[in-house]
Amino acid sequence: MTLRFTSRREVADDRQAVEKVLAALLPAATTDPARLHEAMHYALFAGGKRLRPLLVLAACRACDGQDRQALATAAAVEMIHTYSLVHDDLPAMDDDSLRRGQATTHVVYGEGMAILVGDALLTRAAEILCGSATTDGLDPVPPAAAALLIGAAGTTGMIGGQALDLASEGLHLPLGHLEDLHRRKTGALIHASLLAGGHCAGGSASQLDALGRCGTALGLAFQIVDDILDVTGKPGDLGKSTGKDERAGKSTFPALMGLEASRRRAVELATESRDALAALGTAADPVRDLVSRATERIS
Amino acid sequence: MTLRFTSRREVADDRQAVEKVLAALLPAATTDPARLHEAMHYALFAGGKRLRPLLVLAACRACDGQDRQALATAAAVEMIHTYSLVHDDLPAMDDDSLRRGQATTHVVYGEGMAILVGDALLTRAAEILCGSATTDGLDPVPPAAAALLIGAAGTTGMIGGQALDLASEGLHLPLGHLEDLHRRKTGALIHASLLAGGHCAGGSASQLDALGRCGTALGLAFQIVDDILDVTGKPGDLGKSTGKDERAGKSTFPALMGLEASRRRAVELATESRDALAALGTAADPVRDLVSRATERIS
Repeated sequence: MTLRFTSRREVADDRQAVEKVLAALLPAATTDPARLHEAMHYALFAGGKRLRPLLVLAACRACDGQDRQALATAAAVEMIHTYSLVHDDLPAMDDDSLRRGQATTHVVYGEGMAILVGDALLTRAAEILCGSATTDGLDPVPPAAAALLIGAAGTTGMIGGQALDLASEGLHLPLGHLEDLHRRKTGALIHASLLAGGHCAGGSASQLDALGRCGTALGLAFQIVDDILDVTGKPGDLGKSTGKDERAGKSTFPALMGLEASRRRAVELATESRDALAALGTAADPVRDLVSRATERIS
Repeated sequence: MTLRFTSRREVADDRQAVEKVLAALLPAATTDPARLHEAMHYALFAGGKRLRPLLVLAACRACDGQDRQALATAAAVEMIHTYSLVHDDLPAMDDDSLRRGQATTHVVYGEGMAILVGDALLTRAAEILCGSATTDGLDPVPPAAAALLIGAAGTTGMIGGQALDLASEGLHLPLGHLEDLHRRKTGALIHASLLAGGHCAGGSASQLDALGRCGTALGLAFQIVDDILDVTGKPGDLGKSTGKDERAGKSTFPALMGLEASRRRAVELATESRDALAALGTAADPVRDLVSRATERIS
Protein backbone atom coordinates (compact mmCIF):
# COMPACT_ATOMS: atom_id res chain seq x y z
CA MET A 1 0.00 0.00 0.00
CA THR A 2 1.40 3.36 -1.01
CA LEU A 3 1.52 6.20 1.49
CA ARG A 4 -1.62 8.34 1.43
CA PHE A 5 -1.30 12.11 1.46
CA THR A 6 -5.02 12.79 1.24
CA SER A 7 -7.54 11.31 3.64
CA ARG A 8 -10.63 9.44 2.53
CA ARG A 9 -12.56 12.35 4.04
CA GLU A 10 -10.81 14.89 1.85
CA VAL A 11 -11.49 12.84 -1.27
CA ALA A 12 -15.13 12.53 -0.21
CA ASP A 13 -15.32 16.32 0.22
CA ASP A 14 -13.88 16.88 -3.24
CA ARG A 15 -16.30 14.38 -4.70
CA GLN A 16 -19.16 16.25 -3.03
CA ALA A 17 -17.93 19.53 -4.53
CA VAL A 18 -17.98 17.86 -7.96
CA GLU A 19 -21.52 16.52 -7.39
CA LYS A 20 -22.69 20.01 -6.44
CA VAL A 21 -21.29 21.58 -9.60
CA LEU A 22 -22.68 18.78 -11.79
CA ALA A 23 -26.12 19.39 -10.29
CA ALA A 24 -25.79 23.15 -10.82
CA LEU A 25 -24.76 22.71 -14.46
CA LEU A 26 -27.46 20.21 -15.45
CA PRO A 27 -31.09 21.34 -15.93
CA ALA A 28 -33.25 20.13 -13.00
CA ALA A 29 -34.80 16.68 -13.47
CA THR A 30 -38.28 18.18 -13.37
CA THR A 31 -37.79 20.82 -16.07
CA ASP A 32 -39.38 20.30 -19.45
CA PRO A 33 -38.83 17.88 -21.21
CA ALA A 34 -38.91 16.13 -17.86
CA ARG A 35 -38.42 12.51 -18.91
CA LEU A 36 -35.23 13.38 -20.79
CA HIS A 37 -33.83 15.47 -17.94
CA GLU A 38 -34.81 12.79 -15.42
CA ALA A 39 -32.97 10.16 -17.49
CA MET A 40 -29.90 12.42 -17.69
CA HIS A 41 -29.91 12.72 -13.89
CA TYR A 42 -30.33 8.96 -13.60
CA ALA A 43 -27.22 8.39 -15.72
CA LEU A 44 -25.10 11.15 -14.18
CA PHE A 45 -25.93 10.76 -10.49
CA ALA A 46 -25.42 7.04 -10.10
CA GLY A 47 -22.53 7.21 -7.66
CA GLY A 48 -19.56 7.05 -10.02
CA LYS A 49 -16.05 7.40 -8.59
CA ARG A 50 -15.63 10.76 -10.35
CA LEU A 51 -11.98 9.94 -11.05
CA ARG A 52 -11.65 12.28 -14.02
CA PRO A 53 -13.07 15.42 -12.37
CA LEU A 54 -10.99 14.67 -9.24
CA LEU A 55 -7.91 14.50 -11.48
CA VAL A 56 -8.81 17.90 -12.98
CA LEU A 57 -9.10 19.42 -9.50
CA ALA A 58 -5.92 17.80 -8.18
CA ALA A 59 -3.91 18.83 -11.25
CA CYS A 60 -5.14 22.42 -10.90
CA ARG A 61 -4.06 22.47 -7.25
CA ALA A 62 -0.71 20.91 -8.16
CA CYS A 63 -0.10 24.02 -10.31
CA ASP A 64 -1.19 26.32 -7.44
CA GLY A 65 -4.63 26.94 -8.92
CA GLN A 66 -7.91 27.46 -7.08
CA ASP A 67 -10.85 25.05 -7.30
CA ARG A 68 -13.13 27.68 -8.84
CA GLN A 69 -10.76 27.74 -11.83
CA ALA A 70 -11.19 24.00 -12.45
CA LEU A 71 -14.71 23.01 -11.41
CA ALA A 72 -16.52 23.80 -14.69
CA THR A 73 -13.88 21.82 -16.60
CA ALA A 74 -14.23 18.98 -14.08
CA ALA A 75 -18.00 18.87 -14.59
CA ALA A 76 -17.65 18.86 -18.38
CA VAL A 77 -15.24 15.92 -18.38
CA GLU A 78 -17.53 13.87 -16.14
CA MET A 79 -20.47 14.55 -18.50
CA ILE A 80 -18.33 13.43 -21.45
CA HIS A 81 -17.27 10.28 -19.59
CA THR A 82 -20.86 9.49 -18.57
CA TYR A 83 -22.24 10.00 -22.09
CA SER A 84 -19.61 7.55 -23.37
CA LEU A 85 -20.70 4.96 -20.78
CA VAL A 86 -24.40 5.36 -21.65
CA HIS A 87 -23.70 4.81 -25.35
CA ASP A 88 -21.12 2.07 -24.71
CA ASP A 89 -23.68 0.11 -22.67
CA LEU A 90 -26.26 0.08 -25.49
CA PRO A 91 -27.25 -3.28 -27.00
CA ALA A 92 -25.55 -2.33 -30.29
CA MET A 93 -22.29 -1.69 -28.41
CA ASP A 94 -21.29 -3.64 -25.26
CA ASP A 95 -24.89 -4.57 -24.36
CA ASP A 96 -24.53 -4.10 -20.62
CA SER A 97 -27.32 -4.06 -18.08
CA LEU A 98 -25.44 -3.03 -14.92
CA ARG A 99 -23.36 0.11 -14.39
CA ARG A 100 -22.34 1.95 -11.22
CA GLY A 101 -24.45 -0.54 -9.27
CA GLN A 102 -27.72 0.17 -11.05
CA ALA A 103 -29.56 -0.88 -14.19
CA THR A 104 -28.12 0.87 -17.26
CA THR A 105 -29.95 3.86 -18.73
CA HIS A 106 -31.38 2.00 -21.73
CA VAL A 107 -32.73 -0.77 -19.49
CA VAL A 108 -34.72 1.78 -17.48
CA TYR A 109 -35.61 4.38 -20.12
CA GLY A 110 -35.40 2.46 -23.40
CA GLU A 111 -32.76 2.48 -26.12
CA GLY A 112 -34.01 5.54 -27.97
CA MET A 113 -34.00 7.67 -24.82
CA ALA A 114 -30.55 6.36 -23.83
CA ILE A 115 -29.16 7.47 -27.20
CA LEU A 116 -30.65 10.94 -26.59
CA VAL A 117 -29.33 11.03 -22.99
CA GLY A 118 -25.79 10.44 -24.27
CA ASP A 119 -26.21 13.05 -27.00
CA ALA A 120 -27.59 15.53 -24.48
CA LEU A 121 -24.78 15.01 -21.95
CA LEU A 122 -22.18 15.55 -24.66
CA THR A 123 -24.01 18.65 -25.88
CA ARG A 124 -24.20 20.02 -22.33
CA ALA A 125 -20.47 19.40 -21.88
CA ALA A 126 -19.86 21.35 -25.11
CA GLU A 127 -21.98 24.23 -23.77
CA ILE A 128 -19.85 24.31 -20.61
CA LEU A 129 -16.59 24.10 -22.54
CA CYS A 130 -17.64 26.88 -24.94
CA GLY A 131 -18.55 29.05 -21.95
CA SER A 132 -22.28 29.31 -22.64
CA ALA A 133 -23.39 27.23 -19.63
CA THR A 134 -22.07 28.33 -16.29
CA THR A 135 -23.01 28.82 -12.66
CA ASP A 136 -22.16 31.33 -9.92
CA GLY A 137 -18.68 31.38 -8.54
CA LEU A 138 -16.96 29.39 -11.28
CA ASP A 139 -14.36 30.70 -13.68
CA PRO A 140 -14.97 29.98 -17.39
CA VAL A 141 -13.11 27.05 -18.94
CA PRO A 142 -9.83 28.26 -20.51
CA PRO A 143 -9.86 27.69 -24.31
CA ALA A 144 -6.76 25.47 -24.09
CA ALA A 145 -8.51 23.17 -21.58
CA ALA A 146 -11.65 23.05 -23.73
CA ALA A 147 -9.64 22.21 -26.85
CA LEU A 148 -7.77 19.42 -25.03
CA LEU A 149 -10.91 17.77 -23.69
CA ILE A 150 -12.98 17.95 -26.87
CA GLY A 151 -10.01 16.72 -28.87
CA ALA A 152 -9.50 13.79 -26.48
CA ALA A 153 -13.19 12.90 -26.80
CA GLY A 154 -13.01 12.78 -30.61
CA THR A 155 -11.98 10.40 -33.36
CA THR A 156 -8.26 10.40 -32.56
CA GLY A 157 -9.11 9.81 -28.89
CA MET A 158 -12.04 8.23 -27.07
CA ILE A 159 -14.49 7.70 -29.95
CA GLY A 160 -11.67 6.42 -32.14
CA GLY A 161 -10.77 3.91 -29.43
CA GLN A 162 -14.36 2.76 -29.20
CA ALA A 163 -14.48 2.28 -32.97
CA LEU A 164 -11.31 0.15 -32.81
CA ASP A 165 -12.80 -1.79 -29.89
CA LEU A 166 -15.97 -2.46 -31.88
CA ALA A 167 -13.95 -3.58 -34.90
CA SER A 168 -11.71 -5.90 -32.89
CA GLU A 169 -14.34 -8.04 -31.15
CA GLY A 170 -13.51 -11.69 -31.69
CA LEU A 171 -10.02 -10.85 -33.02
CA HIS A 172 -6.80 -11.77 -31.26
CA LEU A 173 -5.00 -8.40 -31.01
CA PRO A 174 -1.24 -8.17 -30.56
CA LEU A 175 -0.29 -6.41 -27.30
CA GLY A 176 0.84 -3.24 -29.11
CA HIS A 177 -2.53 -2.86 -30.80
CA LEU A 178 -4.37 -3.45 -27.53
CA GLU A 179 -2.30 -0.75 -25.81
CA ASP A 180 -3.00 1.63 -28.70
CA LEU A 181 -6.74 0.91 -28.50
CA HIS A 182 -6.82 1.63 -24.76
CA ARG A 183 -4.60 4.69 -24.94
CA ARG A 184 -7.36 6.12 -27.09
CA LYS A 185 -10.49 4.67 -25.54
CA THR A 186 -9.62 5.27 -21.87
CA GLY A 187 -6.22 6.92 -21.79
CA ALA A 188 -6.93 10.01 -23.88
CA LEU A 189 -9.59 11.45 -21.57
CA ILE A 190 -7.62 10.67 -18.37
CA HIS A 191 -4.52 12.28 -19.88
CA ALA A 192 -6.55 15.30 -21.02
CA SER A 193 -8.17 15.64 -17.56
CA LEU A 194 -4.77 16.11 -15.90
CA LEU A 195 -3.47 18.46 -18.59
CA ALA A 196 -6.71 20.47 -18.64
CA GLY A 197 -6.52 20.85 -14.85
CA GLY A 198 -3.01 22.23 -15.28
CA HIS A 199 -4.25 24.68 -17.93
CA CYS A 200 -7.04 25.82 -15.61
CA ALA A 201 -4.34 26.94 -13.17
CA GLY A 202 -2.24 28.53 -15.91
CA GLY A 203 0.47 25.92 -15.34
CA SER A 204 3.98 26.34 -16.80
CA ALA A 205 5.31 24.24 -19.69
CA SER A 206 7.31 22.02 -17.32
CA GLN A 207 4.31 21.53 -15.01
CA LEU A 208 2.12 20.59 -17.99
CA ASP A 209 4.78 18.24 -19.30
CA ALA A 210 4.88 16.41 -15.94
CA LEU A 211 1.08 16.15 -15.79
CA GLY A 212 0.97 14.86 -19.36
CA ARG A 213 3.49 12.09 -18.66
CA CYS A 214 1.66 11.20 -15.45
CA GLY A 215 -1.61 10.99 -17.41
CA THR A 216 -0.23 8.79 -20.17
CA ALA A 217 1.02 6.18 -17.70
CA LEU A 218 -2.09 6.41 -15.51
CA GLY A 219 -4.43 5.98 -18.49
CA LEU A 220 -2.86 2.67 -19.46
CA ALA A 221 -2.50 1.48 -15.85
CA PHE A 222 -6.17 2.23 -15.24
CA GLN A 223 -7.26 0.11 -18.22
CA ILE A 224 -5.06 -2.83 -17.23
CA VAL A 225 -6.61 -2.68 -13.75
CA ASP A 226 -10.06 -2.56 -15.33
CA ASP A 227 -9.27 -5.65 -17.40
CA ILE A 228 -7.95 -7.47 -14.32
CA LEU A 229 -11.08 -6.61 -12.32
CA ASP A 230 -13.27 -7.88 -15.16
CA VAL A 231 -11.66 -11.28 -14.49
CA THR A 232 -11.19 -11.23 -10.71
CA GLY A 233 -13.80 -8.75 -9.41
CA LYS A 234 -17.32 -9.27 -8.10
CA PRO A 235 -20.23 -7.36 -9.70
CA GLY A 236 -21.44 -6.38 -6.20
CA ASP A 237 -18.11 -4.67 -5.42
CA LEU A 238 -17.62 -3.06 -8.82
CA GLY A 239 -21.20 -2.03 -9.54
CA LYS A 240 -20.92 -3.43 -13.06
CA SER A 241 -20.99 -6.77 -14.85
CA THR A 242 -17.81 -8.87 -14.88
CA GLY A 243 -16.48 -11.53 -17.21
CA LYS A 244 -17.93 -9.59 -20.12
CA ASP A 245 -14.66 -9.15 -22.02
CA GLU A 246 -14.27 -12.90 -22.31
CA ARG A 247 -17.91 -13.37 -23.31
CA ALA A 248 -17.58 -10.68 -25.98
CA GLY A 249 -14.41 -12.31 -27.31
CA LYS A 250 -12.34 -9.19 -26.54
CA SER A 251 -8.58 -9.14 -26.25
CA THR A 252 -7.51 -8.10 -22.73
CA PHE A 253 -4.24 -7.65 -20.90
CA PRO A 254 -4.80 -10.69 -18.63
CA ALA A 255 -5.66 -12.82 -21.67
CA LEU A 256 -2.52 -11.71 -23.54
CA MET A 257 -0.02 -11.44 -20.65
CA GLY A 258 -1.56 -13.52 -17.86
CA LEU A 259 -2.92 -12.11 -14.59
CA GLU A 260 0.36 -11.86 -12.70
CA ALA A 261 2.26 -10.09 -15.47
CA SER A 262 -0.72 -7.74 -15.91
CA ARG A 263 -0.62 -6.89 -12.19
CA ARG A 264 3.13 -6.22 -12.36
CA ARG A 265 2.70 -4.00 -15.42
CA ALA A 266 -0.08 -2.01 -13.72
CA VAL A 267 2.08 -1.46 -10.64
CA GLU A 268 5.05 -0.38 -12.79
CA LEU A 269 2.88 2.08 -14.71
CA ALA A 270 1.39 3.48 -11.49
CA THR A 271 4.90 4.09 -10.17
CA GLU A 272 5.92 5.68 -13.48
CA SER A 273 2.82 7.87 -13.28
CA ARG A 274 3.62 9.12 -9.77
CA ASP A 275 7.33 9.54 -10.55
CA ALA A 276 6.50 11.73 -13.55
CA LEU A 277 5.27 14.34 -11.07
CA ALA A 278 8.68 14.89 -9.45
CA ALA A 279 9.01 18.43 -10.82
CA LEU A 280 5.79 19.46 -9.08
CA GLY A 281 7.00 18.54 -5.58
CA THR A 282 4.56 17.95 -2.74
CA ALA A 283 1.90 20.15 -4.40
CA ALA A 284 1.19 17.11 -6.58
CA ASP A 285 0.57 14.74 -3.65
CA PRO A 286 -3.22 14.75 -4.22
CA VAL A 287 -2.59 13.65 -7.83
CA ARG A 288 -0.23 10.87 -6.59
CA ASP A 289 -2.96 9.73 -4.22
CA LEU A 290 -5.54 9.53 -6.99
CA VAL A 291 -3.11 7.49 -9.09
CA SER A 292 -2.70 5.09 -6.16
CA ARG A 293 -6.40 4.87 -5.39
CA ALA A 294 -7.24 4.24 -9.05
CA THR A 295 -4.69 1.49 -9.52
CA GLU A 296 -4.55 -0.32 -6.17
CA ARG A 297 -7.93 -1.97 -6.39
CA ILE A 298 -6.20 -5.10 -7.68
CA SER A 299 -3.93 -5.67 -4.65
CA MET B 1 -44.01 30.68 -57.66
CA THR B 2 -42.25 33.45 -55.76
CA LEU B 3 -39.77 35.70 -57.55
CA ARG B 4 -36.21 34.40 -57.36
CA PHE B 5 -33.39 36.78 -56.51
CA THR B 6 -30.67 34.15 -56.58
CA SER B 7 -30.10 31.82 -59.54
CA ARG B 8 -29.88 28.04 -59.21
CA ARG B 9 -26.25 28.46 -60.26
CA GLU B 10 -25.50 30.81 -57.37
CA VAL B 11 -27.11 28.44 -54.86
CA ALA B 12 -25.09 25.58 -56.36
CA ASP B 13 -21.89 27.64 -55.98
CA ASP B 14 -22.68 28.35 -52.33
CA ARG B 15 -23.41 24.69 -51.74
CA GLN B 16 -20.06 23.82 -53.26
CA ALA B 17 -18.32 26.30 -50.95
CA VAL B 18 -20.01 24.58 -47.99
CA GLU B 19 -18.93 21.12 -49.24
CA LYS B 20 -15.36 22.34 -49.53
CA VAL B 21 -15.27 23.63 -45.96
CA LEU B 22 -16.95 20.48 -44.63
CA ALA B 23 -14.26 18.39 -46.34
CA ALA B 24 -11.50 20.62 -44.95
CA LEU B 25 -12.88 20.41 -41.40
CA LEU B 26 -13.41 16.64 -41.30
CA PRO B 27 -10.43 14.26 -41.01
CA ALA B 28 -9.80 12.50 -44.35
CA ALA B 29 -11.71 9.23 -44.82
CA THR B 30 -8.45 7.29 -44.99
CA THR B 31 -6.92 8.57 -41.74
CA ASP B 32 -6.78 6.25 -38.75
CA PRO B 33 -9.25 4.96 -37.51
CA ALA B 34 -10.22 4.66 -41.16
CA ARG B 35 -13.52 2.80 -40.86
CA LEU B 36 -14.93 5.43 -38.49
CA HIS B 37 -13.75 8.34 -40.65
CA GLU B 38 -15.03 6.61 -43.78
CA ALA B 39 -18.45 6.18 -42.15
CA MET B 40 -18.47 9.85 -41.10
CA HIS B 41 -17.80 10.84 -44.72
CA TYR B 42 -20.52 8.47 -45.89
CA ALA B 43 -23.05 10.18 -43.60
CA LEU B 44 -21.91 13.75 -44.25
CA PHE B 45 -21.31 13.67 -48.00
CA ALA B 46 -24.54 12.10 -49.15
CA GLY B 47 -25.83 15.05 -51.14
CA GLY B 48 -27.96 16.83 -48.56
CA LYS B 49 -29.60 20.16 -49.47
CA ARG B 50 -27.35 21.97 -46.98
CA LEU B 51 -30.22 24.29 -46.08
CA ARG B 52 -28.90 25.20 -42.63
CA PRO B 53 -25.35 26.19 -43.71
CA LEU B 54 -26.82 28.11 -46.67
CA LEU B 55 -29.02 29.99 -44.19
CA VAL B 56 -25.95 30.84 -42.08
CA LEU B 57 -24.17 32.23 -45.16
CA ALA B 58 -27.19 34.15 -46.43
CA ALA B 59 -27.88 35.67 -43.00
CA CYS B 60 -24.26 36.75 -42.69
CA ARG B 61 -24.44 38.45 -46.11
CA ALA B 62 -27.75 40.07 -45.19
CA CYS B 63 -25.87 41.83 -42.37
CA ASP B 64 -23.07 42.85 -44.75
CA GLY B 65 -20.69 40.13 -43.58
CA GLN B 66 -18.14 38.17 -45.61
CA ASP B 67 -18.38 34.44 -46.26
CA ARG B 68 -15.10 33.74 -44.45
CA GLN B 69 -16.79 35.02 -41.27
CA ALA B 70 -19.60 32.45 -41.53
CA LEU B 71 -18.21 29.30 -43.16
CA ALA B 72 -16.88 27.58 -40.00
CA THR B 73 -20.24 28.16 -38.29
CA ALA B 74 -22.01 26.86 -41.40
CA ALA B 75 -19.95 23.65 -41.35
CA ALA B 76 -20.59 23.09 -37.64
CA VAL B 77 -24.37 23.41 -38.02
CA GLU B 78 -24.40 20.89 -40.90
CA MET B 79 -22.39 18.42 -38.80
CA ILE B 80 -24.88 18.84 -35.94
CA HIS B 81 -27.82 18.35 -38.31
CA THR B 82 -26.22 15.26 -39.88
CA TYR B 83 -25.40 13.67 -36.51
CA SER B 84 -29.06 14.11 -35.52
CA LEU B 85 -30.20 12.37 -38.72
CA VAL B 86 -27.80 9.44 -38.20
CA HIS B 87 -29.08 8.88 -34.66
CA ASP B 88 -32.70 9.57 -35.58
CA ASP B 89 -32.54 6.86 -38.28
CA LEU B 90 -31.37 4.16 -35.84
CA PRO B 91 -33.66 1.17 -35.23
CA ALA B 92 -34.26 2.34 -31.64
CA MET B 93 -35.46 5.71 -32.95
CA ASP B 94 -37.23 6.13 -36.33
CA ASP B 95 -35.75 2.91 -37.81
CA ASP B 96 -35.18 4.27 -41.29
CA SER B 97 -33.22 2.61 -44.06
CA LEU B 98 -33.14 5.39 -46.70
CA ARG B 99 -31.77 8.92 -46.30
CA ARG B 100 -30.55 11.45 -48.84
CA GLY B 101 -31.08 8.81 -51.51
CA GLN B 102 -28.78 6.21 -50.01
CA ALA B 103 -28.90 3.47 -47.38
CA THR B 104 -28.70 4.92 -43.87
CA THR B 105 -25.39 4.80 -41.98
CA HIS B 106 -26.39 1.95 -39.65
CA VAL B 107 -27.57 -0.17 -42.58
CA VAL B 108 -24.13 0.09 -44.19
CA TYR B 109 -21.81 0.26 -41.16
CA GLY B 110 -23.84 -1.36 -38.38
CA GLU B 111 -25.69 0.16 -35.44
CA GLY B 112 -22.71 0.46 -33.11
CA MET B 113 -20.67 2.33 -35.70
CA ALA B 114 -23.64 4.60 -36.55
CA ILE B 115 -23.94 5.59 -32.89
CA LEU B 116 -20.22 6.47 -32.89
CA VAL B 117 -20.52 8.36 -36.21
CA GLY B 118 -23.21 10.59 -34.69
CA ASP B 119 -21.18 11.10 -31.53
CA ALA B 120 -18.09 11.94 -33.58
CA LEU B 121 -19.88 14.46 -35.84
CA LEU B 122 -21.30 16.25 -32.78
CA THR B 123 -17.86 16.24 -31.13
CA ARG B 124 -16.26 17.62 -34.30
CA ALA B 125 -18.88 20.37 -34.44
CA ALA B 126 -18.05 21.24 -30.83
CA GLU B 127 -14.34 21.44 -31.73
CA ILE B 128 -15.17 23.88 -34.53
CA LEU B 129 -17.48 25.95 -32.33
CA CYS B 130 -14.90 26.12 -29.54
CA GLY B 131 -12.30 27.27 -32.05
CA SER B 132 -9.97 24.27 -31.75
CA ALA B 133 -10.65 22.90 -35.24
CA THR B 134 -10.17 25.30 -38.10
CA THR B 135 -8.81 25.61 -41.62
CA ASP B 136 -6.98 28.29 -43.62
CA GLY B 137 -8.84 31.44 -44.55
CA LEU B 138 -11.76 31.09 -42.14
CA ASP B 139 -12.52 33.38 -39.23
CA PRO B 140 -13.15 31.66 -35.87
CA VAL B 141 -16.77 31.17 -34.79
CA PRO B 142 -17.91 34.13 -32.63
CA PRO B 143 -18.76 32.96 -29.07
CA ALA B 144 -22.34 34.23 -29.43
CA ALA B 145 -22.88 32.12 -32.56
CA ALA B 146 -21.36 29.06 -30.86
CA ALA B 147 -23.58 29.50 -27.80
CA LEU B 148 -26.70 29.85 -29.95
CA LEU B 149 -26.03 26.72 -31.98
CA ILE B 150 -25.01 24.46 -29.09
CA GLY B 151 -27.98 25.71 -27.09
CA ALA B 152 -30.35 25.02 -29.99
CA ALA B 153 -28.93 21.49 -30.28
CA GLY B 154 -29.57 20.73 -26.60
CA THR B 155 -32.39 19.62 -24.35
CA THR B 156 -34.48 22.78 -24.71
CA GLY B 157 -34.03 22.57 -28.49
CA MET B 158 -33.38 19.75 -30.92
CA ILE B 159 -32.69 16.86 -28.53
CA GLY B 160 -35.63 17.92 -26.37
CA GLY B 161 -37.86 17.84 -29.45
CA GLN B 162 -36.63 14.36 -30.33
CA ALA B 163 -37.39 13.18 -26.79
CA LEU B 164 -40.94 14.58 -27.07
CA ASP B 165 -41.28 12.94 -30.49
CA LEU B 166 -40.18 9.59 -29.06
CA ALA B 167 -42.62 9.90 -26.16
CA SER B 168 -45.56 10.85 -28.37
CA GLU B 169 -45.52 7.95 -30.83
CA GLY B 170 -49.00 6.48 -31.03
CA LEU B 171 -50.53 9.43 -29.16
CA HIS B 172 -52.95 11.90 -30.69
CA LEU B 173 -51.29 15.26 -29.99
CA PRO B 174 -53.27 18.51 -29.94
CA LEU B 175 -52.04 20.97 -32.62
CA GLY B 176 -50.38 23.25 -30.04
CA HIS B 177 -48.28 20.37 -28.68
CA LEU B 178 -47.31 19.30 -32.19
CA GLU B 179 -46.17 22.84 -33.02
CA ASP B 180 -44.18 22.96 -29.79
CA LEU B 181 -42.53 19.62 -30.56
CA HIS B 182 -41.49 20.76 -34.02
CA ARG B 183 -40.35 24.21 -32.92
CA ARG B 184 -37.82 22.32 -30.84
CA LYS B 185 -36.97 19.34 -33.02
CA THR B 186 -36.60 21.18 -36.34
CA GLY B 187 -37.25 24.85 -35.69
CA ALA B 188 -34.61 25.54 -33.05
CA LEU B 189 -31.61 24.72 -35.28
CA ILE B 190 -33.05 26.57 -38.31
CA HIS B 191 -33.76 29.62 -36.15
CA ALA B 192 -30.27 29.43 -34.61
CA SER B 193 -28.65 29.09 -38.07
CA LEU B 194 -30.09 32.43 -39.18
CA LEU B 195 -29.27 34.18 -35.92
CA ALA B 196 -25.77 32.70 -35.80
CA GLY B 197 -25.14 33.91 -39.36
CA GLY B 198 -26.15 37.39 -38.24
CA HIS B 199 -23.76 37.17 -35.28
CA CYS B 200 -20.93 36.09 -37.60
CA ALA B 201 -21.34 39.41 -39.41
CA GLY B 202 -21.62 41.38 -36.17
CA GLY B 203 -25.25 42.22 -36.99
CA SER B 204 -27.15 44.94 -35.09
CA ALA B 205 -29.93 44.20 -32.60
CA SER B 206 -32.62 45.08 -35.15
CA GLN B 207 -30.98 42.91 -37.84
CA LEU B 208 -30.77 39.99 -35.41
CA ASP B 209 -34.39 40.51 -34.36
CA ALA B 210 -35.52 40.32 -38.00
CA LEU B 211 -33.48 37.16 -38.63
CA GLY B 212 -34.85 35.57 -35.47
CA ARG B 213 -38.48 36.20 -36.47
CA CYS B 214 -37.75 34.93 -39.99
CA GLY B 215 -36.21 31.77 -38.51
CA THR B 216 -39.10 31.04 -36.16
CA ALA B 217 -41.65 31.15 -38.99
CA LEU B 218 -39.38 29.25 -41.40
CA GLY B 219 -38.69 26.48 -38.88
CA LEU B 220 -42.38 25.68 -38.50
CA ALA B 221 -43.12 26.11 -42.22
CA PHE B 222 -40.30 23.71 -43.04
CA GLN B 223 -41.69 21.01 -40.75
CA ILE B 224 -45.22 21.34 -42.11
CA VAL B 225 -43.80 20.97 -45.63
CA ASP B 226 -41.85 17.92 -44.46
CA ASP B 227 -45.03 16.38 -43.05
CA ILE B 228 -46.91 17.09 -46.30
CA LEU B 229 -44.15 15.51 -48.39
CA ASP B 230 -44.20 12.42 -46.17
CA VAL B 231 -47.79 11.97 -47.40
CA THR B 232 -47.58 13.20 -51.00
CA GLY B 233 -43.92 12.78 -52.01
CA LYS B 234 -42.12 9.95 -53.77
CA PRO B 235 -39.07 8.34 -52.14
CA GLY B 236 -37.16 8.67 -55.43
CA ASP B 237 -37.66 12.46 -55.46
CA LEU B 238 -37.05 13.00 -51.75
CA GLY B 239 -34.22 10.53 -51.22
CA LYS B 240 -35.90 9.20 -48.09
CA SER B 241 -38.76 6.91 -47.11
CA THR B 242 -42.29 8.29 -47.19
CA GLY B 243 -45.48 7.35 -45.37
CA LYS B 244 -43.40 6.63 -42.30
CA ASP B 245 -45.20 9.08 -39.98
CA GLU B 246 -48.46 7.24 -40.47
CA ARG B 247 -46.80 3.84 -40.03
CA ALA B 248 -45.14 5.03 -36.81
CA GLY B 249 -48.46 6.36 -35.53
CA LYS B 250 -47.10 9.92 -35.35
CA SER B 251 -49.23 13.03 -35.18
CA THR B 252 -48.63 15.23 -38.23
CA PHE B 253 -49.99 18.51 -39.53
CA PRO B 254 -51.85 16.87 -42.47
CA ALA B 255 -53.39 14.32 -40.09
CA LEU B 256 -54.56 17.04 -37.69
CA MET B 257 -55.48 19.83 -40.14
CA GLY B 258 -55.90 18.07 -43.49
CA LEU B 259 -53.61 18.47 -46.50
CA GLU B 260 -55.13 21.66 -47.91
CA ALA B 261 -55.14 23.56 -44.62
CA SER B 262 -51.56 22.38 -44.00
CA ARG B 263 -50.51 23.75 -47.40
CA ARG B 264 -52.19 27.09 -46.68
CA ARG B 265 -50.52 27.33 -43.26
CA ALA B 266 -47.09 26.56 -44.78
CA VAL B 267 -47.58 29.28 -47.41
CA GLU B 268 -48.71 31.78 -44.76
CA LEU B 269 -45.69 31.00 -42.59
CA ALA B 270 -43.31 31.28 -45.57
CA THR B 271 -44.75 34.74 -46.32
CA GLU B 272 -44.46 35.71 -42.65
CA SER B 273 -40.85 34.49 -42.70
CA ARG B 274 -39.92 36.58 -45.74
CA ASP B 275 -41.84 39.62 -44.48
CA ALA B 276 -39.96 39.52 -41.18
CA LEU B 277 -36.86 40.54 -43.13
CA ALA B 278 -38.24 43.96 -44.21
CA ALA B 279 -35.76 45.88 -42.06
CA LEU B 280 -32.84 44.24 -43.88
CA GLY B 281 -33.88 45.46 -47.33
CA THR B 282 -32.61 43.81 -50.49
CA ALA B 283 -29.48 42.55 -48.70
CA ALA B 284 -31.74 39.81 -47.34
CA ASP B 285 -32.94 38.63 -50.76
CA PRO B 286 -30.77 35.48 -50.65
CA VAL B 287 -32.43 34.58 -47.31
CA ARG B 288 -35.89 35.18 -48.86
CA ASP B 289 -34.94 32.88 -51.71
CA LEU B 290 -33.89 30.10 -49.37
CA VAL B 291 -37.20 30.45 -47.51
CA SER B 292 -39.03 30.07 -50.83
CA ARG B 293 -36.93 27.15 -52.04
CA ALA B 294 -37.34 25.32 -48.72
CA THR B 295 -41.10 25.74 -48.58
CA GLU B 296 -42.25 25.57 -52.21
CA ARG B 297 -41.59 21.89 -52.77
CA ILE B 298 -45.26 21.27 -52.02
CA SER B 299 -46.67 23.42 -54.80
